Amino acid sequence: MEMLQGVMEFQKNLAKDHAQVVPISVFVAVLCLCVVVGHLLEENRWVNESITAIILGCLAGGVILAVSKGNSSHILTFNEELFFIYLLPPIIFNAGFQVKKKQFFQNFLTIMLFGVVGVFISASIITSGSWWLFPKVGFAGLNARDYLAIGTIFSSTDTVCTLQVLHQDETPLLYSLVFGEGVVNDATSVVLFNAIQKIDVTRLSALTPLNVIRDFLYLFLTSTALGITSGLLTALVLKTLCFGRHSTIREITLMVLMAYLSYMLAELFELSGILTVFFCGILMSHYAWHNVTHSSRITTKHVFAMMSFIAETFIFLYVGMDALDIEKWKMSKLNMGTSLGICSTLILLISVARAAFVFPLSALSNYMNRAHSERGSKITFKHMIIIWWAGLMRGAVSIALAFEQFTFYGVTLDPINATMITTTIIVVLFSTVVFGLLTKPLINYLLPHPTTTNDIIRERRYDNAREDMTLPLLSLEESATTNILRAKESLSMLMEMPVYTIHSYWRKFDDAYMRPFFGGPHPVNEQSPA
Amino acid sequence: MEMLQGVMEFQKNLAKDHAQVVPISVFVAVLCLCVVVGHLLEENRWVNESITAIILGCLAGGVILAVSKGNSSHILTFNEELFFIYLLPPIIFNAGFQVKKKQFFQNFLTIMLFGVVGVFISASIITSGSWWLFPKVGFAGLNARDYLAIGTIFSSTDTVCTLQVLHQDETPLLYSLVFGEGVVNDATSVVLFNAIQKIDVTRLSALTPLNVIRDFLYLFLTSTALGITSGLLTALVLKTLCFGRHSTIREITLMVLMAYLSYMLAELFELSGILTVFFCGILMSHYAWHNVTHSSRITTKHVFAMMSFIAETFIFLYVGMDALDIEKWKMSKLNMGTSLGICSTLILLISVARAAFVFPLSALSNYMNRAHSERGSKITFKHMIIIWWAGLMRGAVSIALAFEQFTFYGVTLDPINATMITTTIIVVLFSTVVFGLLTKPLINYLLPHPTTTNDIIRERRYDNAREDMTLPLLSLEESATTNILRAKESLSMLMEMPVYTIHSYWRKFDDAYMRPFFGGPHPVNEQSPA
Repeated sequence: MEMLQGVMEFQKNLAKDHAQVVPISVFVAVLCLCVVVGHLLEENRWVNESITAIILGCLAGGVILAVSKGNSSHILTFNEELFFIYLLPPIIFNAGFQVKKKQFFQNFLTIMLFGVVGVFISASIITSGSWWLFPKVGFAGLNARDYLAIGTIFSSTDTVCTLQVLHQDETPLLYSLVFGEGVVNDATSVVLFNAIQKIDVTRLSALTPLNVIRDFLYLFLTSTALGITSGLLTALVLKTLCFGRHSTIREITLMVLMAYLSYMLAELFELSGILTVFFCGILMSHYAWHNVTHSSRITTKHVFAMMSFIAETFIFLYVGMDALDIEKWKMSKLNMGTSLGICSTLILLISVARAAFVFPLSALSNYMNRAHSERGSKITFKHMIIIWWAGLMRGAVSIALAFEQFTFYGVTLDPINATMITTTIIVVLFSTVVFGLLTKPLINYLLPHPTTTNDIIRERRYDNAREDMTLPLLSLEESATTNILRAKESLSMLMEMPVYTIHSYWRKFDDAYMRPFFGGPHPVNEQSPA
Repeated sequence: MEMLQGVMEFQKNLAKDHAQVVPISVFVAVLCLCVVVGHLLEENRWVNESITAIILGCLAGGVILAVSKGNSSHILTFNEELFFIYLLPPIIFNAGFQVKKKQFFQNFLTIMLFGVVGVFISASIITSGSWWLFPKVGFAGLNARDYLAIGTIFSSTDTVCTLQVLHQDETPLLYSLVFGEGVVNDATSVVLFNAIQKIDVTRLSALTPLNVIRDFLYLFLTSTALGITSGLLTALVLKTLCFGRHSTIREITLMVLMAYLSYMLAELFELSGILTVFFCGILMSHYAWHNVTHSSRITTKHVFAMMSFIAETFIFLYVGMDALDIEKWKMSKLNMGTSLGICSTLILLISVARAAFVFPLSALSNYMNRAHSERGSKITFKHMIIIWWAGLMRGAVSIALAFEQFTFYGVTLDPINATMITTTIIVVLFSTVVFGLLTKPLINYLLPHPTTTNDIIRERRYDNAREDMTLPLLSLEESATTNILRAKESLSMLMEMPVYTIHSYWRKFDDAYMRPFFGGPHPVNEQSPA
């Protein structure tokens, strides 16, 4: 008994000391290093935050590999739960919280074209392309479900890299499109991936794509509704209870917890947590954020950004470390040539698939917005190239989906799955590092001179003028005739440029009903966390 | 193969959906509820935050028990790793970060008397008392190590409850003593607990207590040194690199990560993470906090408070939920009478053991401070009663230590261990709820009228006057004779009131060497996050 207890206590101490403390310490230390190095390289022409993290991760992996005498390079088993439950929610919530809502919604249709339709096109091309080409480079053994999954896995983009180079004030349209597509793309990939998991691959029919689209739409709408509800609920609670009276800490805590709760509830009801938490973020920054004290506003803005920053760096660090995982390399049992073949095929497919929707959909968007193409909302050919390039990088979502598809709780079961995991990691590494390094030079080449300040101011003025033109549409002091005339006018405007008109009606409704009820800035001095 | 894969995927989905999402959702939802209810009851005469959380936890446990049809009341297995790795560090760091450093260090000796010597006295009394009394109420089977552990487990106090009632401005000495003792007590209990784990119970000798004290001192000094080093390092990095130039997010991230890293490093080197992170917090708020941008200051102050708040609420919520854990009740196999006997014995021992050191040590402290007893630094009898009462509550640290001693990763192995766990939970519940409810009325009775504002101002003026008297001791413009005279004077002052003199020398050194190097406020307009 005494003996047994002794042994158990020893095991307990051993487990306690090594199972958690060592990996956490190493990870936190390398994260600190990332922060410092990222700061020092801020003005570097080539490198960005993601590349820094990946390279530092590789170095750390190398050191661990050396210390453990070639046994293992990674000290923390990646599982997609860690990613989907703890790392992804802060990233996506922060995206919603900091998004410039006006620009996002003004370009809503174009963003949706790229982010939703684009993913469908890209996933189909990559699926059929890999199905056709993989056996030709000597890699067989995947089933239909795997190919479908591959299409989605490699359709999720990582635009962080490009966003660090673009400037919101210099090229507002481009920034808003790349940013918006990035977020919608993440959500679409995950939702599509889950919809594909439900397909009964043994009974594929012409109706299967329709079923996928139906599932997708259902998930999209319910998840959005849940996100909006929880955002509004938070705003209402904060407004009604005036937490700031007693403690600002409670306000901040409630915002953080409600954001997380919305994500977890969505996962609980098997909806898309990403969409939910994104819309929750938008609603919170639009209403709830204005119901808290000044110091809580500053704090929440920075807290969400910090959590997102830590989560992103953590993921890239992990990818870097995992790249040196000997086990998976050994297990995949493929020669260099085949591996290279698979990776090149995938990178080629990614580029082609992205080109196949960016250029046509940009043209479509230009056609839809032809009524006010003079406003600078036309996507030029150079812009198209940048949008295409911005979406070539693959990142955390790809890795997470690949782990979900090809591992069992982070453990690879057979050579084929191991190959797919290593392939995904190589594609992510290659696209982030190689494409990433070329991003700054490319954009500086395509957009050589930043728009002069005068231009920006003129554009903004124009923007305001247009808004003034559409804003008084519903004023009540005018005669009935004018109203009917105006109604006709606004109807034709609705046909011509639907998004603008809807946006302007929404703002009226917002100012008249939503903001007085849920809280928000006074219409005159608008401010938002972004 | 297909079949196997199907089964595994099903298991995976089941595990994914239920192992993590459900408990996290429930916990986050109940946490939100706690925040709202805590706010609504803020002005209530009896209830405080801890009681709210415990009661809500009980209710949630009851609901879960009903839903699971009597199977289980808790959905998350408590393990001391969760507590020591994720929940305790933010609480202790925040205590160090927000502590009023001047008052803390001026009362340093008294705080150490209560927090270190007091725990030793209390632990000895509880250990010998329970060793003597437990068999008399019909509970046997514990070994020497268990009794030693019980002494430490029930010597750790939880002063949150009292601190919510006391006001820092009205009774600064009392507040500072209760707050300081609370933190030092936590650290001492954990360090002592670990020192006791190392005792070879088969070879107890007269040297054993000395060995414990030696181990304790070693841990205390090394841990403090590590905390100070990491705090200063953070300050230096922030000052040298000027993160605010590019991004305030990096500053905040680095502060949070370095704080956590100091704790994890201490655990890695088998030191006391609590002490390390506490001193790291003090150093960070004293130097590093002044090297960051204005918005980072607001953010860090609130972030640390928020994390601490969430961790504290989470723990009390868990204790409430765990109270209804049927398994442990069934396993303990004791009748009502014996259980009641054990709990009453412990509560009696706690009260006696605390009285046994609070009153003598207060008298000792008054004797040491006799030279400036007129300054309001004398501990009156009413103050002694409040200090005694403030430390009667038992909280999270007791629970965590009990789980570490009497369970194997949260699973109780035999009836005796199960009894000790349920007993600890009952004692924590009883002391928090019953003593907690009486705290506000008791303090209002003992300190009926808050000190008038005039008194406070007079006291502060006196404080400043005394400081002015000691500050110019080292000025260089004076003649040698004066200097020698002054040196004598300051030596006699060092004998008379050592802490004050050391504190004043420290401040000179700080202003002259430390602050210019590590960063800090300009000596004139001092400010700190507290």
